[in-house]
Amino acid sequence: MHRTRVRIVEDALDANDTIARANRDDFDRAGVRVVNLMSAPGAGKTRLLERALVGLQELGVRAGVLEGDVQGSFDADRLSALHLPVAQLNTGNGFGGECHLDANMVRSALPALALDELDLLIVENVGNLVCPAEFRIGEDARIMVCSVTEGEDKPLKYPLMFRACELVIVNKIDLLTHLEFDVRRLLDNVAAVNPDARTMLVSAATGEGVDAVRDWLAAIAAREPAVA
Amino acid sequence: MHRTRVRIVEDALDANDTIARANRDDFDRAGVRVVNLMSAPGAGKTRLLERALVGLQELGVRAGVLEGDVQGSFDADRLSALHLPVAQLNTGNGFGGECHLDANMVRSALPALALDELDLLIVENVGNLVCPAEFRIGEDARIMVCSVTEGEDKPLKYPLMFRACELVIVNKIDLLTHLEFDVRRLLDNVAAVNPDARTMLVSAATGEGVDAVRDWLAAIAAREPAVA
Repeated sequence: MHRTRVRIVEDALDANDTIARANRDDFDRAGVRVVNLMSAPGAGKTRLLERALVGLQELGVRAGVLEGDVQGSFDADRLSALHLPVAQLNTGNGFGGECHLDANMVRSALPALALDELDLLIVENVGNLVCPAEFRIGEDARIMVCSVTEGEDKPLKYPLMFRACELVIVNKIDLLTHLEFDVRRLLDNVAAVNPDARTMLVSAATGEGVDAVRDWLAAIAAREPAVA
Repeated sequence: MHRTRVRIVEDALDANDTIARANRDDFDRAGVRVVNLMSAPGAGKTRLLERALVGLQELGVRAGVLEGDVQGSFDADRLSALHLPVAQLNTGNGFGGECHLDANMVRSALPALALDELDLLIVENVGNLVCPAEFRIGEDARIMVCSVTEGEDKPLKYPLMFRACELVIVNKIDLLTHLEFDVRRLLDNVAAVNPDARTMLVSAATGEGVDAVRDWLAAIAAREPAVA
């Protein structure tokens, strides 16, 4: 039974990769670069976007957001204040309430977005440190946000997520003075599981460090499509 | 294909419930009550246990812990300082790195614990607000811990988790003075999805409110087995 289960999982991931490639072809044709934004619940992804997306337009980047949630549209409603194209994708509607986005779910949501009018699409994944890292959606780059309130051990406990990302954003640094939290130890743990990851220290609450995130997103938007 | 997928999920949950009942029979025979402890990553489950389990012995409760993690034994190592029986269960070892515990995984770990010598077994689930709520493990009660750093909207975004629990512990209240966080709004959101849930405000860092958690655990340990 266990072998059957492994086979089913492998088949599902193969099928996902096929659809992810189709998504990627569509993104490349439309000239839009895609970022998969992941974190645990409550790490501050939406608040970070509220900060980082303001000013992208002045950098010549037309950005849009695909919001992934099990249910509800709380984050999409928040982001609609930015007057950017925002689409909502609920895993609770026809996708079994899944704990992550996969390539097929993202594909189903693409008609809601005018890809040709975007340079950058940010896909805010379901808050979860395990499964989102296993499912490619056709993205060009992956970001994970971890908060200093979550503890320094997270890279060691959820290494797949930290390994899957190019950029690790350490958020809520405004709270550091009120916590027993060793940033150096967290960064060492990130480096232990992913030595190539870029790291940024940020407070989405105060705005500290958000410029670097915005510049990084603009650089992704300016990238040539990677050869598949 | 979608219908097939739903069927597979339903079959898996049925199979899980069968094993959960077998676990529950074993727990009842041994006279041990079981609590399934869930939260997002970094909400403070382990720190709360470090506080709440001290003093349970004086209340006449012999407690043990089963630690669930994708990989590593960081939390089990921390809890071993309490000189309680602690067993580690890794979903990365033979369970595909699953994002939750299920009844079969818990069953596989039971031989590592002398159930007859326990009154209360706490199962610390994998940090995740989605899937752990779907898989019964044979428990008597379920707790979820949410932290005030995660935002007031979590009950509305992850309602299944909040509905599944008897007790919702709001942790890290020592940080409230440094956050824009409306406790009343969180509690209203909890009540909206689960009016029967008991709620407790706690700081595992300072110990505030932990006595109530300890008393609650002692009351669970003293319960008669529910008729299945």
